[in-house]
Amino acid sequence: MTAQTVLQTPTLLIDRAKEAMQKAYAPYSHHYVGAALLSEDGRIWTGCNIENAAYSPSICAERTAIAKAVSEGARSFAAIAIVGGREGHITGSFPPCGVCRQVMAEFCCPDTFLVFLGTPTGFETHTLRELLPSGFFPSALQGD
Amino acid sequence: MTAQTVLQTPTLLIDRAKEAMQKAYAPYSHHYVGAALLSEDGRIWTGCNIENAAYSPSICAERTAIAKAVSEGARSFAAIAIVGGREGHITGSFPPCGVCRQVMAEFCCPDTFLVFLGTPTGFETHTLRELLPSGFFPSALQGD
Amino acid sequence: MTAQTVLQTPTLLIDRAKEAMQKAYAPYSHHYVGAALLSEDGRIWTGCNIENAAYSPSICAERTAIAKAVSEGARSFAAIAIVGGREGHITGSFPPCGVCRQVMAEFCCPDTFLVFLGTPTGFETHTLRELLPSGFFPSALQGD
Amino acid sequence: MTAQTVLQTPTLLIDRAKEAMQKAYAPYSHHYVGAALLSEDGRIWTGCNIENAAYSPSICAERTAIAKAVSEGARSFAAIAIVGGREGHITGSFPPCGVCRQVMAEFCCPDTFLVFLGTPTGFETHTLRELLPSGFFPSALQGD
Repeated sequence: MTAQTVLQTPTLLIDRAKEAMQKAYAPYSHHYVGAALLSEDGRIWTGCNIENAAYSPSICAERTAIAKAVSEGARSFAAIAIVGGREGHITGSFPPCGVCRQVMAEFCCPDTFLVFLGTPTGFETHTLRELLPSGFFPSALQGD
Repeated sequence: MTAQTVLQTPTLLIDRAKEAMQKAYAPYSHHYVGAALLSEDGRIWTGCNIENAAYSPSICAERTAIAKAVSEGARSFAAIAIVGGREGHITGSFPPCGVCRQVMAEFCCPDTFLVFLGTPTGFETHTLRELLPSGFFPSALQGD
Repeated sequence: MTAQTVLQTPTLLIDRAKEAMQKAYAPYSHHYVGAALLSEDGRIWTGCNIENAAYSPSICAERTAIAKAVSEGARSFAAIAIVGGREGHITGSFPPCGVCRQVMAEFCCPDTFLVFLGTPTGFETHTLRELLPSGFFPSALQGD
Repeated sequence: MTAQTVLQTPTLLIDRAKEAMQKAYAPYSHHYVGAALLSEDGRIWTGCNIENAAYSPSICAERTAIAKAVSEGARSFAAIAIVGGREGHITGSFPPCGVCRQVMAEFCCPDTFLVFLGTPTGFETHTLRELLPSGFFPSALQGD
């Protein structure tokens, strides 16, 4: 399946994110989040949040999915779906935290990368630029 | 001086951020950043970026200033000024990274908290909401 | 292959870590690190370091491998191999940073989890407890 | 007071850490931690833990104190005291997390930097090297 085909049916990605949410390791917050990341060449990687007793080494579902993809050679991405909740139910919209937006900014085109946020009744769609305007992008350092 | 007075002359904050930039510890990136944070009651805290050989434990100027303020009892803030560059010169606009926006979101009102970004010739002004729309705010967890 | 079989031949893990190192995304430090994580049930996950322009959202090879494994349901681990260098050559021993040791502490038994550090001529072996004595373990919070 | 004088009476540092603990911002874990950092020239900086709804941008008491000190020009340190608990009472020994040990490694001499861990009845003393053996030190990158 191409990335374009998946983008025509975002619920495919949302469903993968829901499955991934079941693997979440969240013994401290009890909030479970799942993500499904689509690369430009049509592959999908999933992630969940993984917490840590010391809090700051915790990683979110979005970053888990991106780390998996990058570690397997992917470098350009089309979209990500994110769902969150408690006890396996989507209880609201969980927009990505600032850390995850920053990690997206490293690899994703602000104007074309799509973020699908699952809600109890459907999903919302944002571009990365809508979520991280005036971003601190790699060009800030690489331009030296 | 009250917070309101300082906000009428943002260059006061910009100047404090420039001074703070000189304390930056940036042996890996060689980018020096300074910040000056204004609390609602008119106090000012400054910070600089502090890097780490392992990269991820690095902290930005903005978060350094916020950590100082919170550790001294401040909990509500009016504005922050941020300047960055190399070798002590402001070489461009350094918008806050996503991690810092997330930390601002913990303590600052999205609609009234102002971010002054120093540039080589002056400064730009943003609200936190403009920099972190659809943010992941504490209410997401505290609402349980 | 069982975990026990792999542990009898640590170079198997070292070799997987070397392969993973080739996927590293390290445009800022130019240090490339790879890791291969062995779960108790004999599965192997690999990871590489993935840097970020803002530095603190960077992730190390070890944490990438652990995030992959946990997101696919693994929860108990036997060992990890780590290699690092520049331009694809192992240039020294790259012991895990404190952040990665903390993430290991969340999932791994301090006394039995083995860390194999690749060197230009072979490898060294440590237990997690040797690398993180008097650790801040999950029990500190979960005991409430 | 010189650093040497303070080191002869570690309870001075412990007491400062206890005071700092009262400023902790810990609405998620409800664990309160305070730290007091002693520079080689006898100055003391205090810090507390400051949590974040997104967990990973949280900062520990130790790193708050170090960020404050470095941002005010200090670069070499003699010791740190750490105390932790709930509701203002020291409920046990809170050894520093791996992230904080890594940040100490950036600035502190492994063999001489002392870590005083407050306990309900007194304190324990460790060197940084005892807490972070085979550490990933700045020399790993700066040696290039």
